[in-house]
Amino acid sequence: MNEDLRSVVERMVREAVEGRVHAIGGRSVPINISARHMHVSQEHLGVLFGPGAVLTKLRDLMQPGEFAANETVAVVGKNRRVFEQVRILGPVRKSTQVELSYTDGRYLGMDLPARVSGDIAGTHPVILVGPRGVVQLSEGVIRALRHVHIGEDDAARIGLRNGQLVSVRAFGPLGVTFDQVLIRAGKNLVREMHVDTDEANAAGLGPGAVGEIIFS
Amino acid sequence: MNEDLRSVVERMVREAVEGRVHAIGGRSVPINISARHMHVSQEHLGVLFGPGAVLTKLRDLMQPGEFAANETVAVVGKNRRVFEQVRILGPVRKSTQVELSYTDGRYLGMDLPARVSGDIAGTHPVILVGPRGVVQLSEGVIRALRHVHIGEDDAARIGLRNGQLVSVRAFGPLGVTFDQVLIRAGKNLVREMHVDTDEANAAGLGPGAVGEIIFS
Repeated sequence: MNEDLRSVVERMVREAVEGRVHAIGGRSVPINISARHMHVSQEHLGVLFGPGAVLTKLRDLMQPGEFAANETVAVVGKNRRVFEQVRILGPVRKSTQVELSYTDGRYLGMDLPARVSGDIAGTHPVILVGPRGVVQLSEGVIRALRHVHIGEDDAARIGLRNGQLVSVRAFGPLGVTFDQVLIRAGKNLVREMHVDTDEANAAGLGPGAVGEIIFS
Repeated sequence: MNEDLRSVVERMVREAVEGRVHAIGGRSVPINISARHMHVSQEHLGVLFGPGAVLTKLRDLMQPGEFAANETVAVVGKNRRVFEQVRILGPVRKSTQVELSYTDGRYLGMDLPARVSGDIAGTHPVILVGPRGVVQLSEGVIRALRHVHIGEDDAARIGLRNGQLVSVRAFGPLGVTFDQVLIRAGKNLVREMHVDTDEANAAGLGPGAVGEIIFS
């Protein structure tokens, strides 16, 4: 039995590695994992961190201009469970929005809808606690719909258009093909897939993960 | 913009529903979600619940003879974080084994390997606390390798063999195709796929989920 298992696992790893090599082609896409995080409006930033507060940069993200801030906030569910340090991503946006995995949502007692970033109408309320104040958000908690950022020219070159749904095959010993992946093409975007921690964990993905965009 | 989003979501749901109808064919498979749980040896059951303890049935599971027990145990990581009520599945087994999602493992400070049930050599240690005693397990925490149970005759009828790796397309608005799914064919097994909560959440699966077995 154990010999059988070993050979199965060896085969899986071999196929995964070979699959990954094959992916280094025109449709490969780096896959980055979004841990729970939030975006904040200038108004709410002032409430949470004091009047006139500004986000300070911890590190740049892959998309130009986007950054992880040093500032973190406690996110409290109606069930009074807490994620104590949820990082803010900058720059500030028009609306405050909290992005959690579905598992995170369950922990806070929420059945999270999968939404495109910015589409928060009718989503769950949540409480944000900063060092200087509290925001009672009437809506704004989403699970981000899995998506691929890509530059307009890059997209056109491989035959993709903004709003298209594709599949992305993520390689690895627990390989998963994500169907219904939204293409978000735009100026100044860089080719990158974002998945949440549920999706990453389901596919056994870690740093340096790569996928292949599949469409007909 | 919001109109665009709405039409994308409507399309996704429509495709998902249609896809699901198509799946009701010879290769469809019910997908059930395994929450964190454990199996226990008779010896450890005695330590945790007292000498001569027996598991009592809460409800039958889909596989013949398998059941969820009323008995639960606290599972404590080296980081002293706890899952307070981890359900035991019966009947008792030769070895005690804890099955968590990868996300669960991270919470307890473990980088969990994906293993076939029973293959626990070299896996993480963990502490189990029952109402009557404590077990310090030197190894035994796994993330269960995604798999399909299937009866031998049923498997043969659709051309599957034990140990084969297939893909399973899970339908739904967040559809995912799981690659590297292990076929576990045997006497007295019933066709059923088991995924963990990470995999279910990545695919947006809930009660009544259905997939289609894909192989070439």
